[in-house]
Amino acid sequence: MEMESGGKAVDPFVLRETHDGVVTLRLNRPQQFNALSEAMLEALRVAFEDVARDDSVRCVVLAAEGKAFCAGHDLREMRGRPDLAYYRTLFAQCSVVMQAIQALPVPVIARVHGIATAAGCQLVASCDLAIASVAAKFAVSGINVGLFCSTPSVALSRNVSTKRAFDLLVTGRFIDAETAADWGLINEAVPEQELDAAVARKAEAILSKSPAAIRYGKAMFYRQRLMELGDAYAFAGDVMARNMMEEDAGEGIDAFLQKRPPRWQR
Amino acid sequence: MEMESGGKAVDPFVLRETHDGVVTLRLNRPQQFNALSEAMLEALRVAFEDVARDDSVRCVVLAAEGKAFCAGHDLREMRGRPDLAYYRTLFAQCSVVMQAIQALPVPVIARVHGIATAAGCQLVASCDLAIASVAAKFAVSGINVGLFCSTPSVALSRNVSTKRAFDLLVTGRFIDAETAADWGLINEAVPEQELDAAVARKAEAILSKSPAAIRYGKAMFYRQRLMELGDAYAFAGDVMARNMMEEDAGEGIDAFLQKRPPRWQR
Amino acid sequence: MEMESGGKAVDPFVLRETHDGVVTLRLNRPQQFNALSEAMLEALRVAFEDVARDDSVRCVVLAAEGKAFCAGHDLREMRGRPDLAYYRTLFAQCSVVMQAIQALPVPVIARVHGIATAAGCQLVASCDLAIASVAAKFAVSGINVGLFCSTPSVALSRNVSTKRAFDLLVTGRFIDAETAADWGLINEAVPEQELDAAVARKAEAILSKSPAAIRYGKAMFYRQRLMELGDAYAFAGDVMARNMMEEDAGEGIDAFLQKRPPRWQR
Repeated sequence: MEMESGGKAVDPFVLRETHDGVVTLRLNRPQQFNALSEAMLEALRVAFEDVARDDSVRCVVLAAEGKAFCAGHDLREMRGRPDLAYYRTLFAQCSVVMQAIQALPVPVIARVHGIATAAGCQLVASCDLAIASVAAKFAVSGINVGLFCSTPSVALSRNVSTKRAFDLLVTGRFIDAETAADWGLINEAVPEQELDAAVARKAEAILSKSPAAIRYGKAMFYRQRLMELGDAYAFAGDVMARNMMEEDAGEGIDAFLQKRPPRWQR
Repeated sequence: MEMESGGKAVDPFVLRETHDGVVTLRLNRPQQFNALSEAMLEALRVAFEDVARDDSVRCVVLAAEGKAFCAGHDLREMRGRPDLAYYRTLFAQCSVVMQAIQALPVPVIARVHGIATAAGCQLVASCDLAIASVAAKFAVSGINVGLFCSTPSVALSRNVSTKRAFDLLVTGRFIDAETAADWGLINEAVPEQELDAAVARKAEAILSKSPAAIRYGKAMFYRQRLMELGDAYAFAGDVMARNMMEEDAGEGIDAFLQKRPPRWQR
Repeated sequence: MEMESGGKAVDPFVLRETHDGVVTLRLNRPQQFNALSEAMLEALRVAFEDVARDDSVRCVVLAAEGKAFCAGHDLREMRGRPDLAYYRTLFAQCSVVMQAIQALPVPVIARVHGIATAAGCQLVASCDLAIASVAAKFAVSGINVGLFCSTPSVALSRNVSTKRAFDLLVTGRFIDAETAADWGLINEAVPEQELDAAVARKAEAILSKSPAAIRYGKAMFYRQRLMELGDAYAFAGDVMARNMMEEDAGEGIDAFLQKRPPRWQR
């Protein structure tokens, strides 16, 4: 793991650590609660781009240094540039990063240990999977500073039912991790000391599968959801037929029929 | 508050009461369980139109007089006009009222104290937020009189998951308020005697925010949900950039950075 | 009820039993955990086609013989034909059967007593209603054999929220019936010995309604969900106006106003 060394120039905003195909990306502006400044967004964009190009990556964990997971946009930086064109560019930059998570060929697990607010909550919603400490808290709290969390609402409302999403957006209130799990914003809330183990277990479950099948699946999953039923089936059926032609599917089925563990390609 | 005085001509179908920017609209045909007759629908349409034009309104509470919240359409009135064109016009009139709730610039909270059935349940589903007494009950019960709740299903299925909505629609059965909260049809079920306080707390939470930000947000929220992800982000990002150019956003962020309460415009 | 008699040629893959308008279709390849072989899919397609043509049918129960409800595709058969065109045809054949359930004019209740995996879980998701024994278990487990459950994900993601669906798809893990009920994949989990009674109660609830109204409703329900709000209301309002012109609606409302039970047509 790359270590902090104090100075801003040396210190990357997103630390990267790799273990057996699992890349952990760690937001690293702990003093600013990992606020998504322009530089942080650019660091995330580059990190996701690198992951997307690297065929050895099987799973990404998105974690964070310090007390907070992520407190959303960098309000001080935003306030320093009161300009419509600037804000449009900034929110577009942020939206690119959020969409890059779904566009990645491998699953992304959010590891949430502290508060995740505004665009920080959106980061959690944008990941494929999320596991949080019971101490984590979630809010789309822009409304508290006069700025409705419009772009976070895009991700939130695709994870959480209508009235719950609306309530969070207009009140800016926090929900705890157990409520977030109950509402489908995250997959699981676990005791703080079990968070790393729970994330590792989820990553290992993914690592034990055929890499090709996971890539087929993730790329298919989000696209089919937007289609009408008949189109979705035509598309998913074609993906599944191509998946069946992969060596891994043959090996997986043979192994199953022979009651032995499969050996995946790569 | 306008008070009932007995005679139909004097007695408006929808009572209106205003306190500090919160408009309470109260269905007022208690003897008919606040059935949505043509006159009641017209009264609601006019009430929502008035609210939409009034910039001083910050939040609407939709409540009801008598034992029931709302028992849906006025079956006796409907039965008196067995005519296809009449029914088309009636359901179109009702749909206009339901859509007017989402089209309002400010949040609408349903305050549900008794049964909400058929188009009455649809009213609850159509509001942005809903808080109910634990004594409230919900059903889309048209099927019990040979009339499938088709228009209510539009609102219901946008709040509640598929199999739950289908079950309610084909069985006509009641669910209690706690189940309704668990399924996302309402936000909260509270003891009867705490209902007014819970509704007031929610309204106050909304009143404490920037009026401009709430208006940006509500108008954006329902529109972005229908878009594909990329389009939704482009739209929400543009709204959020314009929201940032409002004085309230500057004030809100400054107040936050200076650790003081914000002072909103108006 | 048609009874098993041992030999494959005599033994139909889908047993059919009719009682008072309720058709029970029973998957009958218990030794193969009711795998959806080409022959089984064709038998289901024909069974649904027969039901669709039969105006006396009021409700369908989809059940299964043996220990499992349905373990998905027939992997041995699939593995014997490693050919892209064959797989495309097979998944298209399967998708036709799944869509036929929604296209049926009457409600279909899944009666799930054992495991429902991969396309077997998709069958459950595709039914209008589902009641399971607490002993039932659910998984979209294709990923365990290198084949991501792409077509099952189409039905699953239209019943269960995003992160939960994604989790099941990439881990292949089982959930129990109570979790499935909590997530909306099924309507109810009941003790094994109460399963038949619970299914019968649901069927009886449907049988007690106007046949015409149920048919209007099911045909309308899935179509309106894909429309924008205004279009959905226009469509549902038109269906409801036509439903009001049926004798059953007049009779149902008159019976309600006269406080007597309704007598439906047919």
